[in-house]
Amino acid sequence: MKAVRLKVENNKLNLVLNEEAKPSIGRRDVLVRVLAASLNYRDQAILQDNYPGEVKQVIPLSDGAGEVVAVGDSVTRVKVGDRVSANCWEYWIGGPILPEYFSSSVGFTTDGWLAEYIVLHEVAIVHLPDYLSFTAAAALPCAAVTAWAALNQKTPLSPGQTVLVQGTGGVALFALQIAKMVGASVLAITSSDEKAEKLKELGAEAVVNYTNQPDWEKDIHALTGGIGVDKVVDIAGEKTIVKSAASTRIGGNVALVGFAGGSGGGISPIDIMSRALSLNTTTMGTRMDFEALLAAMAAHKMNPVIDRVFPFADYQDAYSRLASGAMVGKIVIEM
Amino acid sequence: MKAVRLKVENNKLNLVLNEEAKPSIGRRDVLVRVLAASLNYRDQAILQDNYPGEVKQVIPLSDGAGEVVAVGDSVTRVKVGDRVSANCWEYWIGGPILPEYFSSSVGFTTDGWLAEYIVLHEVAIVHLPDYLSFTAAAALPCAAVTAWAALNQKTPLSPGQTVLVQGTGGVALFALQIAKMVGASVLAITSSDEKAEKLKELGAEAVVNYTNQPDWEKDIHALTGGIGVDKVVDIAGEKTIVKSAASTRIGGNVALVGFAGGSGGGISPIDIMSRALSLNTTTMGTRMDFEALLAAMAAHKMNPVIDRVFPFADYQDAYSRLASGAMVGKIVIEM
Amino acid sequence: MKAVRLKVENNKLNLVLNEEAKPSIGRRDVLVRVLAASLNYRDQAILQDNYPGEVKQVIPLSDGAGEVVAVGDSVTRVKVGDRVSANCWEYWIGGPILPEYFSSSVGFTTDGWLAEYIVLHEVAIVHLPDYLSFTAAAALPCAAVTAWAALNQKTPLSPGQTVLVQGTGGVALFALQIAKMVGASVLAITSSDEKAEKLKELGAEAVVNYTNQPDWEKDIHALTGGIGVDKVVDIAGEKTIVKSAASTRIGGNVALVGFAGGSGGGISPIDIMSRALSLNTTTMGTRMDFEALLAAMAAHKMNPVIDRVFPFADYQDAYSRLASGAMVGKIVIEM
Amino acid sequence: MKAVRLKVENNKLNLVLNEEAKPSIGRRDVLVRVLAASLNYRDQAILQDNYPGEVKQVIPLSDGAGEVVAVGDSVTRVKVGDRVSANCWEYWIGGPILPEYFSSSVGFTTDGWLAEYIVLHEVAIVHLPDYLSFTAAAALPCAAVTAWAALNQKTPLSPGQTVLVQGTGGVALFALQIAKMVGASVLAITSSDEKAEKLKELGAEAVVNYTNQPDWEKDIHALTGGIGVDKVVDIAGEKTIVKSAASTRIGGNVALVGFAGGSGGGISPIDIMSRALSLNTTTMGTRMDFEALLAAMAAHKMNPVIDRVFPFADYQDAYSRLASGAMVGKIVIEM
Repeated sequence: MKAVRLKVENNKLNLVLNEEAKPSIGRRDVLVRVLAASLNYRDQAILQDNYPGEVKQVIPLSDGAGEVVAVGDSVTRVKVGDRVSANCWEYWIGGPILPEYFSSSVGFTTDGWLAEYIVLHEVAIVHLPDYLSFTAAAALPCAAVTAWAALNQKTPLSPGQTVLVQGTGGVALFALQIAKMVGASVLAITSSDEKAEKLKELGAEAVVNYTNQPDWEKDIHALTGGIGVDKVVDIAGEKTIVKSAASTRIGGNVALVGFAGGSGGGISPIDIMSRALSLNTTTMGTRMDFEALLAAMAAHKMNPVIDRVFPFADYQDAYSRLASGAMVGKIVIEM
Repeated sequence: MKAVRLKVENNKLNLVLNEEAKPSIGRRDVLVRVLAASLNYRDQAILQDNYPGEVKQVIPLSDGAGEVVAVGDSVTRVKVGDRVSANCWEYWIGGPILPEYFSSSVGFTTDGWLAEYIVLHEVAIVHLPDYLSFTAAAALPCAAVTAWAALNQKTPLSPGQTVLVQGTGGVALFALQIAKMVGASVLAITSSDEKAEKLKELGAEAVVNYTNQPDWEKDIHALTGGIGVDKVVDIAGEKTIVKSAASTRIGGNVALVGFAGGSGGGISPIDIMSRALSLNTTTMGTRMDFEALLAAMAAHKMNPVIDRVFPFADYQDAYSRLASGAMVGKIVIEM
Repeated sequence: MKAVRLKVENNKLNLVLNEEAKPSIGRRDVLVRVLAASLNYRDQAILQDNYPGEVKQVIPLSDGAGEVVAVGDSVTRVKVGDRVSANCWEYWIGGPILPEYFSSSVGFTTDGWLAEYIVLHEVAIVHLPDYLSFTAAAALPCAAVTAWAALNQKTPLSPGQTVLVQGTGGVALFALQIAKMVGASVLAITSSDEKAEKLKELGAEAVVNYTNQPDWEKDIHALTGGIGVDKVVDIAGEKTIVKSAASTRIGGNVALVGFAGGSGGGISPIDIMSRALSLNTTTMGTRMDFEALLAAMAAHKMNPVIDRVFPFADYQDAYSRLASGAMVGKIVIEM
Repeated sequence: MKAVRLKVENNKLNLVLNEEAKPSIGRRDVLVRVLAASLNYRDQAILQDNYPGEVKQVIPLSDGAGEVVAVGDSVTRVKVGDRVSANCWEYWIGGPILPEYFSSSVGFTTDGWLAEYIVLHEVAIVHLPDYLSFTAAAALPCAAVTAWAALNQKTPLSPGQTVLVQGTGGVALFALQIAKMVGASVLAITSSDEKAEKLKELGAEAVVNYTNQPDWEKDIHALTGGIGVDKVVDIAGEKTIVKSAASTRIGGNVALVGFAGGSGGGISPIDIMSRALSLNTTTMGTRMDFEALLAAMAAHKMNPVIDRVFPFADYQDAYSRLASGAMVGKIVIEM
């Protein structure tokens, strides 16, 4: 099979297209013919060796979708012909995160989706609803599951609550779409009026341009009658966390999902205590989160925002598009 | 009745002993003859107008215990002669914190325990187990309930888990005693070998002197086989929060309960995300927390560590003792 | 003021219209001018002395809405002119049910809404969204809050999940409407094709006529691909509980909210264990449930199904309508 | 290797001792040399084809302990030489029960512990604390994990709460020991004064002989000051469930863990609703439950009650002992 693999060459990580043997399957494994895969911010960080943990020379990409072409003798959840995707953590089905799950992080510690075939334990597999294309499904595992978990982890988002999302990256757009599905109100911040329009199209009730309004937390308070939002999905970390906390109602929740704005800075204890906040982080989510997301999406026939689709041969261009930061929505590669 | 009241005199807050009318009771109210009251760090902060929120000229002290001497016509939970204390938030029985509870914060927004009598709505009342003296009970409402909530709020503490406590203040000692009651292991940090001895006497498995070991989070890791503790009760805020987070296991919890070390500084998002932590804060706790604490204490015949007991007439000395910072355990005033 | 009161006359409970003094207010109380009130199955049960607990000679009705006309000196949550309703349990704000709440059950142990004025502690009050009429709001406290709690108590209902509701009573219709707001699928059972049409109009995906299909749990399984529904809101108790359990997926939840079908019968342990079910009951819900419901309703501009509206003078006709069992939706009395 | 296997012979299930090939291991599998195994009520039910689900001709027994002798190439959690046991559900690490876990039920749908070796996926493995013998550890997976989950599933057991346990079977004795470790009070019912003595030795505060006191729920109420217990671990199902519910406080929990008294009978909705109860069932528990149990046991150096130990060659005698119902505590087979 054709497969792209992370290779250390001259002390530098590169992506190399190889012809490899099709992987064999164990008794509970599933062989999937990959039809689409998608890129996340983390894939670029891994390639630049800028991601926590030791980089392995694996096939990259945590996100993909395809068709089952073979199953092990003891497999019961999946059959040949099933349209499937998989959770980014192969063994995290439900319950809290455990360090052991890091040893089967698809596309980082085990082989990922940037190949013609992938082998996964059957416990990782999710089934796709009929309405969802492979291309759309490939966009979900990392970013959409993160958004789902961020909104529902501490306490599930309820209709009529208010959520703050930040920017137009993958997680932010999914958080916006998911919150709207649930019947929540969404406020957003972004850097340009053009992006603000996109966010309003997707359903944001109000968007604050933080370039013009550096004290945007005051706008968020004004927009919520001085109360603050129920939940913040914080994306930029260093640049946003203090203002995110200040934007949240007494007793509300800030979910930390990214550090696009830098990994320094910090939030003081008094900023957390004075508003009785809880801060959580999502490390993507469980397979059950992914399945709940798919059920919700199917109920609303929701589709992800796709920035651009590349053929497998142009995978380097897909990575370049990612590196440019210019995308709105997900970058997908079709096999 | 005799009552001490916060008074603004010459633009400065003072404590003034008055003869006041015994307060009247509404149909669901309870009149308690105060037999003991206790002081917390917050009482000093209030007196110095260094506490978040506008200071009112109320009778101070959130903590006390006494005997019921009268009840309103519609009272059903309490009867004359009952031995009682009360939750610091008069109306917070259960569920999450709400901003409205701040309007009935005993000893801060409504009259507190530094008087011969106090009136409380019956929903605030907790009943004392027989073994517990009024003096011991008066030590509990703020600090012990905070410690209970800090240990049990996110997920209840389980036997065999490991907790990190900090220093020898009220909340820290209660957290240590409560954790031991549950069957958890306790690690502690403190500033002197003498205080370390006290902590070991109370059951701490190991104590790190942070004066000698400024990188104490490394000691905590070594003491937990490199895994980190399940929960930290963070007391000092600015001075400890980063090391507290670093001391916690993947997926663990840091409960922020104080800012004795200052309210600046801060924890970076990456420090939270890389260990998949959750951070919570306790704002004392619910009446149900207080009742669960009392049930647990009764099962173990646990008693608080009392630093010193003062007669009512010497209330100023009690405040001075608090201001000195020299106490180990609680300062109590007996009426 | 005009007020209807339960009176024991000749050893029988009657409803008697009186001229009474307007009730006085304590320091945290709120006086509400009643504009609408509504009836529930329980009000008939109380009148027939067929409700668990001793009947008191109170003003009946747990459900109503109106305008605030006076507030006690210490009230902070509410002001004169506010459009409000109130939770059925005056002091149950959040957290688990406690026996003490029974002593302030509006319209059962304390005076209710069938009068020109009602006094409530401010902690009971909920504020009405602008879009909601007093008549619509009066329909909510008991039945809609019960439905909300039944769907969200064990684990919050998630979009894409499937719920089974039973019949066309108040709680069933609210459960249907709430589930649709959340984006869940709703299956229903009912006794006639005419009622089935009404349920489909309100959004039920499929309705089984249990008169024709006594083994309706098999239909429910067929409609869910053999898996069973995520949640059942069980209304009829004796007549439905076994089939409700059989209709639920492995690991699913049955919320018991009524016993319209009788209070005998029973479910065997093996029926619970073999499907790994949990069974809960709702005792209406918390004020926070009510507020979450109102926020959700406001987001969707949802309105209750009103069967018929009676003027205050015809309150006996309203009770007769309730006794007839012919209503679809809520019976409201306007003052 | 020597292995006992369930075989259908002449239309009847038998246990047959075979010489079989040592099982091979996949990349994430672990080969354990079995040192001890234990029997549960369910093993007898399986042998009698009286257990829900189709019986497979597997090596029986869900419970065992041993030493790791080989691991697959990708195994990270376990190494050769580790002292281990395993969860009864091979893939249930955390979170709610899912139907898929039934396909890897050790000793029922996949090969169990009654052999010289067993192969398990590494995610099933738990590590034994040093103090715990293989014989003691082998007693835990089914019964002790069930007891742990029953006590902690709905809301974790808290010190000072009161638990009701029933009889002297495996789960009941573990529930008693675990509750005592947590600092809870334990009430018990049993059929003889002799067994009552055993229960008191293990820490039960009071024991009611239900042979003499058929209305034992009244005794339980009297023993709890008329309030009822916080939790019941219901063992006998048909014979106990109604009285178990009646013994529970308003808002309390009944965990259904067995049906030793029959699978008929039933509890009426009104019995659940009038006490605002929740009923749950445990299907043993998660690997995380098992690990939490082991941590708690290690903190208290708790050991299971062992009825009798048999050598491997006498496995038929072990089954006979189980069938006799005469045991108090667990029956263990040592390899």
